[in-house]
Amino acid sequence: MFVDLNVDAGESYGTFTYGHDREIFPLVTSVNLACGFHGGSPTRIREAVALAKAHGVAVGAHPGFPDLVGFGRRDMALSPEEVYADLLYQIGALYAFLKTEGLSLHHVKPHGALYLRACRDRETARAIAEAVKAFDPEVPLVVLPGTVYEEEARRAGLRVVLEAFPERAYLRNGQLAPRSLPGSWISDPKEAARRALRMVLERKVEALDGGEVEVKAETLCIHGDNPNAPEVALAVRRALEEAGIEVKPF
Amino acid sequence: MFVDLNVDAGESYGTFTYGHDREIFPLVTSVNLACGFHGGSPTRIREAVALAKAHGVAVGAHPGFPDLVGFGRRDMALSPEEVYADLLYQIGALYAFLKTEGLSLHHVKPHGALYLRACRDRETARAIAEAVKAFDPEVPLVVLPGTVYEEEARRAGLRVVLEAFPERAYLRNGQLAPRSLPGSWISDPKEAARRALRMVLERKVEALDGGEVEVKAETLCIHGDNPNAPEVALAVRRALEEAGIEVKPF
Amino acid sequence: MFVDLNVDAGESYGTFTYGHDREIFPLVTSVNLACGFHGGSPTRIREAVALAKAHGVAVGAHPGFPDLVGFGRRDMALSPEEVYADLLYQIGALYAFLKTEGLSLHHVKPHGALYLRACRDRETARAIAEAVKAFDPEVPLVVLPGTVYEEEARRAGLRVVLEAFPERAYLRNGQLAPRSLPGSWISDPKEAARRALRMVLERKVEALDGGEVEVKAETLCIHGDNPNAPEVALAVRRALEEAGIEVKPF
Amino acid sequence: MFVDLNVDAGESYGTFTYGHDREIFPLVTSVNLACGFHGGSPTRIREAVALAKAHGVAVGAHPGFPDLVGFGRRDMALSPEEVYADLLYQIGALYAFLKTEGLSLHHVKPHGALYLRACRDRETARAIAEAVKAFDPEVPLVVLPGTVYEEEARRAGLRVVLEAFPERAYLRNGQLAPRSLPGSWISDPKEAARRALRMVLERKVEALDGGEVEVKAETLCIHGDNPNAPEVALAVRRALEEAGIEVKPF
Repeated sequence: MFVDLNVDAGESYGTFTYGHDREIFPLVTSVNLACGFHGGSPTRIREAVALAKAHGVAVGAHPGFPDLVGFGRRDMALSPEEVYADLLYQIGALYAFLKTEGLSLHHVKPHGALYLRACRDRETARAIAEAVKAFDPEVPLVVLPGTVYEEEARRAGLRVVLEAFPERAYLRNGQLAPRSLPGSWISDPKEAARRALRMVLERKVEALDGGEVEVKAETLCIHGDNPNAPEVALAVRRALEEAGIEVKPF
Repeated sequence: MFVDLNVDAGESYGTFTYGHDREIFPLVTSVNLACGFHGGSPTRIREAVALAKAHGVAVGAHPGFPDLVGFGRRDMALSPEEVYADLLYQIGALYAFLKTEGLSLHHVKPHGALYLRACRDRETARAIAEAVKAFDPEVPLVVLPGTVYEEEARRAGLRVVLEAFPERAYLRNGQLAPRSLPGSWISDPKEAARRALRMVLERKVEALDGGEVEVKAETLCIHGDNPNAPEVALAVRRALEEAGIEVKPF
Repeated sequence: MFVDLNVDAGESYGTFTYGHDREIFPLVTSVNLACGFHGGSPTRIREAVALAKAHGVAVGAHPGFPDLVGFGRRDMALSPEEVYADLLYQIGALYAFLKTEGLSLHHVKPHGALYLRACRDRETARAIAEAVKAFDPEVPLVVLPGTVYEEEARRAGLRVVLEAFPERAYLRNGQLAPRSLPGSWISDPKEAARRALRMVLERKVEALDGGEVEVKAETLCIHGDNPNAPEVALAVRRALEEAGIEVKPF
Repeated sequence: MFVDLNVDAGESYGTFTYGHDREIFPLVTSVNLACGFHGGSPTRIREAVALAKAHGVAVGAHPGFPDLVGFGRRDMALSPEEVYADLLYQIGALYAFLKTEGLSLHHVKPHGALYLRACRDRETARAIAEAVKAFDPEVPLVVLPGTVYEEEARRAGLRVVLEAFPERAYLRNGQLAPRSLPGSWISDPKEAARRALRMVLERKVEALDGGEVEVKAETLCIHGDNPNAPEVALAVRRALEEAGIEVKPF
């Protein structure tokens, strides 16, 4: 039994530092590196790639909307052609740093509002899948299970990796609870660890609106920008390993 | 006897159109495509790559300073590390579009103020050469002959392609005449064609400050943003071909 | 009887030129100048302000979404706080150029997707109105009649100026026909002029889906980025003046 | 006897937080707020203006080069026309937030590489002075004494405020020691406080290359982005006040 532990990272931009890459990279098994649009400037991407290499973690691309000031968290009505081209541009930019370090592109996982748009808008999802397929059909897409995004990734023939969020509350219908709902965010490292464990061992977790919800998780996402992100990552990793679950890249 | 005819292109950005790509691509043999920093947005880069493919012209990367509002024409005091990372980022971004179209990266030629800085600043030149070498040591660098930029490109072991400018006046010392000097710019297509021919056949051209200057040219640059750029390109190409010089990519 | 003729302008950005400011400014009575977010760089804004002053046209601010690559035409899910701050920033930036030229800020008209979002999203509309009111409660807002945007502008106590579009088809319900509908765009200068005249004289126009629709117009918008924009502006202006309608700023 | 204590602030950008505004604003008497080019997004500028108002500190504009990724710290070869327009744009943008809060623009102080360029390049200095004069001739410019920047500010008829840097080493010739020199940076709060005191009381300080150097200081700059910036500000302020020097805006 095994699972991957992923974190969004490499989001620092020039002089602006974001997240806790140095503390978290030793604790996870894969990282999704920003590609310059919502965060991640060339020198900081290079730095993050070197850090990932030093810690032996797998590196994926984390493309986002072209909205630096909004950190890619605001929905944008991009056409499928724009999504496709923006994905290629960002994946290629990151790829150059991987290639020069002798690393391969491990996966792609869209960022923030682009990820959420892909989950509910089929055209966006398809554009993402087509871009990844066009760049390299062997590269897996990390997806939220049960969404049109998963469907389109599969339809494109890509390998699909299912993601779950131990720090986020789920609704009975399988969706992530909106962050505006009380209790939608789990900040206690122990509780996040308990949920992570249940997700992997039992393939389910308690729903915020009552009952339980099935959760399929090949990779668990740790939010690297929380103040206590390193503690959460450590607690989750330890809980998994103590339960005999191997933590390794998918 | 042969020579390449190159043009800077793909510099449109979103809704903003720049240059005369559609008119000029049929007339040249290689294009240097902007990579997003001084011009060239993802959808417009994709469009330019498709246009290049349709016309069978070789595609090189044309990375510039991160100065969209200044079109990469203003000198910027970037550190060598910043130049290196900016080059990798831009080359990779373009590469993704080439890869998906089944094209290979034919060469790299820096843009505007970055090109000029490389010609006079050894550290900048070295950073450019090292970035290209790290990405792919088989990719040639287009250089201005007789500069530290040429030296560093050779020192890195890269293939070097010498460039000349039929529309620009030269000084006796081999340098390009500053644009502020009267007569520094040749806008007449016939005169540009005559000079292009002399550069290739006799390896020399008249200097603005008297006498002649030796000019080595494996590729001739046409400035695609002049109002009469297509006429200049046509006149130069015809003159070369009528003189029995084969016009083809290096 | 009088009406204003407005055009979106000042949208050039650095080396990238957009629209037909020089040809159109002599033909209109007010201009909405881009403020740097969707177009309009400092030197080009300054140039547009000087041009407006030379032609004696009234200058309004034309703030847009922070989306240069999308030219502010893609909807963005900004919070009301973000809209409010983005408006103040852009209005202030333009104001500086007006102040130094001895001009006053004549009005505010949001651009593209921000304008459309204001028409259907009350919170966005309110944020725009509050920003203008906070900066200067005497400055009028140009609005699309019959929208929540008009309502919120009035509720804020601002002077409201009603806008109509002679080049755009209307639906029976008073809304602009989506650009995707056949016939939604009127490119013939004579037809645009005929419609403009009817809008002012009869306060109505034919609807694309049959019948007629009431149109209130204190200002008519000419789209300055069409290839034949100067001809349209000229035809509309002449038709109005020949009918004895005074064309002057509101 | 009195002196002003200033800090560069408001440099956060969207989700990216920079500096220690909340800790430092209570300790200084004036702040130089970023205007969006090197840092400072609309919502973060608004936040900083509100914070300044709450603490009763005077607010100046801190315009920089259009180089967000380089934080305005890399020299850029802007034309005087570009400097002039960039200054107006940024000053106006900040002004809008001040106006809506009922504050006035207290001063202007260029940022980073623009400040340094103004100190050595007369045309840049003149463009800055002309822009401030054009916007409001009553607004003072903060300058480094003994530079062409000071000269041009005076020639434009602006009020000039002399600045000194307790945390930076000086050379005998009155210039700031380059940061690359060992000892060029004073990080010990006590030592910074001692130097601040000497600058105000004796109008001199020890030079890094031996001897003493005259220092004229109407305002002392604290670097708000150092990890111990709040301690330095506190130490400097206490030392000044304990010596009976009034700390207040110029």
